[in-house]
Amino acid sequence: MADSPNCDLKSLSPLQMFERVTEQGEKVRALKAGKAPKDEIEAAVRMLLSLKLLYKTTTGQDYQAGLPPRDLVLINNGTSKEEDEDFVDPWTVQTSNAKGVDYDKLIVRFGSSKIDTDLINRIERATGQKPHRFLRRGIFFSHRDMDQILDAYENKKSFYLYTGRGPSSQAMHVGHLIPFIFTKWLQEVFDVPLVVQLTDDEKYLWKDLTIEKSYEYARENAKDIIACGFDINKTFIFSDLDYLGTSTGFYKNIVKVQKHVTFNQVKGIFGFTDSDCIGKISFPAIQAAPSFSSSFPQIFNGKENIQCLIPCAIDQDPYFRMTRDVAPRIGQPKPALLHSVFFPALQGAQTKMSASDPNSSIFLTDTPKQIKTKINKHAFSGGRDTIEEHRKYGGNCDVDVSFMYLTFFLEDDDRLEQLKQAYTSGELLTGELKKVLIETLQPLIAAHQERRKQVTDEMVKQFMTPRKLAFEF
Amino acid sequence: MADSPNCDLKSLSPLQMFERVTEQGEKVRALKAGKAPKDEIEAAVRMLLSLKLLYKTTTGQDYQAGLPPRDLVLINNGTSKEEDEDFVDPWTVQTSNAKGVDYDKLIVRFGSSKIDTDLINRIERATGQKPHRFLRRGIFFSHRDMDQILDAYENKKSFYLYTGRGPSSQAMHVGHLIPFIFTKWLQEVFDVPLVVQLTDDEKYLWKDLTIEKSYEYARENAKDIIACGFDINKTFIFSDLDYLGTSTGFYKNIVKVQKHVTFNQVKGIFGFTDSDCIGKISFPAIQAAPSFSSSFPQIFNGKENIQCLIPCAIDQDPYFRMTRDVAPRIGQPKPALLHSVFFPALQGAQTKMSASDPNSSIFLTDTPKQIKTKINKHAFSGGRDTIEEHRKYGGNCDVDVSFMYLTFFLEDDDRLEQLKQAYTSGELLTGELKKVLIETLQPLIAAHQERRKQVTDEMVKQFMTPRKLAFEF
Repeated sequence: MADSPNCDLKSLSPLQMFERVTEQGEKVRALKAGKAPKDEIEAAVRMLLSLKLLYKTTTGQDYQAGLPPRDLVLINNGTSKEEDEDFVDPWTVQTSNAKGVDYDKLIVRFGSSKIDTDLINRIERATGQKPHRFLRRGIFFSHRDMDQILDAYENKKSFYLYTGRGPSSQAMHVGHLIPFIFTKWLQEVFDVPLVVQLTDDEKYLWKDLTIEKSYEYARENAKDIIACGFDINKTFIFSDLDYLGTSTGFYKNIVKVQKHVTFNQVKGIFGFTDSDCIGKISFPAIQAAPSFSSSFPQIFNGKENIQCLIPCAIDQDPYFRMTRDVAPRIGQPKPALLHSVFFPALQGAQTKMSASDPNSSIFLTDTPKQIKTKINKHAFSGGRDTIEEHRKYGGNCDVDVSFMYLTFFLEDDDRLEQLKQAYTSGELLTGELKKVLIETLQPLIAAHQERRKQVTDEMVKQFMTPRKLAFEF
Repeated sequence: MADSPNCDLKSLSPLQMFERVTEQGEKVRALKAGKAPKDEIEAAVRMLLSLKLLYKTTTGQDYQAGLPPRDLVLINNGTSKEEDEDFVDPWTVQTSNAKGVDYDKLIVRFGSSKIDTDLINRIERATGQKPHRFLRRGIFFSHRDMDQILDAYENKKSFYLYTGRGPSSQAMHVGHLIPFIFTKWLQEVFDVPLVVQLTDDEKYLWKDLTIEKSYEYARENAKDIIACGFDINKTFIFSDLDYLGTSTGFYKNIVKVQKHVTFNQVKGIFGFTDSDCIGKISFPAIQAAPSFSSSFPQIFNGKENIQCLIPCAIDQDPYFRMTRDVAPRIGQPKPALLHSVFFPALQGAQTKMSASDPNSSIFLTDTPKQIKTKINKHAFSGGRDTIEEHRKYGGNCDVDVSFMYLTFFLEDDDRLEQLKQAYTSGELLTGELKKVLIETLQPLIAAHQERRKQVTDEMVKQFMTPRKLAFEF
């Protein structure tokens, strides 16, 4: 069953969309006034709510009756403004396209390389393992220098993994797991050490949080990360607030990066302004420094110049474009990168899932019932307005959030393909597709919660203690 | 004997000064062409060199024949530009006045308070000690909240001292000793702990230095600081590059300050531009943080909010004006300050002594012979052009560098007053005054060198180890 606005709405301008919402509001009022059947009124209200959400997602503004949308200015940090309306930086992801960001264009704009079949095959050959579904399905879709990592790896020269998380709240959502699920797979198939940065200092600088709260969130988030199943002997998780004060190498790399990046540069890359605090302005160096092995003398026995590979969502790329620019000037190797797409909000792929909007997210703490309700209520559907139309024309998987989530979490390729065909043909209804997603996510999240319960404070302490890992370089 | 340009030169405009240099150059050429007596030529050459130096000190440009001075734009960070031409910031001190910076105006511009006789008497009563000659002679001339420090001290509430040094080279000069000599006295008479920050990170950021070299300079400078006689049980000396990576409290205070200061603010205070590296832009927070006792949990047993008193040269005040602005917003007490005048260059009080110009400085490593030669050759004299004139009109102590140095280093007030009167009356010649200075400095520097020799690597290590000091708060 379709419970969402017709898909061609995505081609409307903000003003046209405003008019559609107004129109639908009038329709609801008319139905109520005319005492129409309850079902009919409810369907019209659902459509109204969906239209309002779509309006908000597209324009970034709440629908207000009588107030047409303000000019939609999409700033486009460090990327060409004219080309399209996608906005991607480490803090905001926004597009007017219900299919989500145009990732092929992003590759061109960011100057990265597409992860093509050749590269996926090469990873398969190098590791002797079937490529992860995130690779098979283009969820990790872009890279920088992954071929060099493989060149070295094939010559028995190892590397280390670096990923991270900004602990802005206690609750992590399923989207936050994507880089960690993939990083865990990379760690296993390549057998390499991993460092995980928790940027509690960043969250303190950006949010209305105390230092203590940010640090608490970092420790809580560490539990969810540990629950992904990382090997305690191969993984070091650190909070910036903590580790900066206990490492002899980290600050030295930070200050080296800070010497080689000007305010003009961070202004161009991150869109900082003169009114931003100096903490924000210098923070990019703190996210850059773990790309250099000398930031972890205890792990690498003081060895410098060990190659780093960073799996992350593509919105983090600006940090590492900067890092790669600085690296040769401070005598360090450039980190390589693997970029993932964004994990879409329940309301649609126009923006990514955000922990600060509970209705846009499925949290790792949600109960099976909450998961079911959220998906049924909020997951944007690519289905048609009525069952009849849906049977006749079929649903649109390109914009259907439930289907998108299944590409992330359903391991079975054949099943996914069957679902796609059945939905596209109209054979499978929205409610049925949602049911598959609910039944996929519920056990996954329950299992995560079970593993998280096993994570003791002692384990957190161990993961977060700077120490030698089970590797020789 | 006077070996310097006539004192009324100081009232000339840069262009008039340029013309005087050109004129003197022609005079030298004429004397040489006319085969004048050797003495006469030498005197004219000395005058020419002095004029060129004065020209350079005033305009910041080397004299070049035929090239009149470029417009003299004195940027006046955070202070009113129209008022006068004194330029004071943490990197540059420049005035067109041979008497040096107008400190009374600086007090008004910076919004600090004059150290008056009442305050000096109060310090004497509180400590039961004769005030240090730096207080008696107005060398420490300005303060912020020193009365509050005394209020608390009289109520048995203690404080700690914080001072520092930017280790830009291995060699420290006598001017660098001023804050340390005074800080040692404060530590003794108030019996309080002291932290000394060596900003090796700052020097790495500002200068063409490696991290390793900056750190090496920090350790070398620590030896000279230790040689001032600080008590090892009451003093913690730290390099930023070192301590930031070993303290649980320091980085947290840095990031707190960084959250509460914008680029606009540091631009106004320090004159940073968009082309400055982000390390420079965020550095002020690193000089601010030691003003808060929580940056030193090992010294203060984790106790926060212990009052801090900072003795420093007044060019460092911009850092602490910023710190005092931030302090209440992060729940910390404002540090109090005691400001000293600058230690003038040998060439005159238009600028301060600089380690990067060997001829402007007497180094702590200079031999008795070097000290003698430098003073005789370079110390700007307030004497007259000829012995006859000098006997008749007397010398000018206000601009005479040898006399200024004696106010810093000659302990005997009566002797200093006698010298002043004798020089002003013309009874004492420049050469004789210089001799007194040479005989004062030679044994002081020799004694310093002797004490420095006693400073072992083990002692440096001890001073630089974060630890509990012999105090209870």
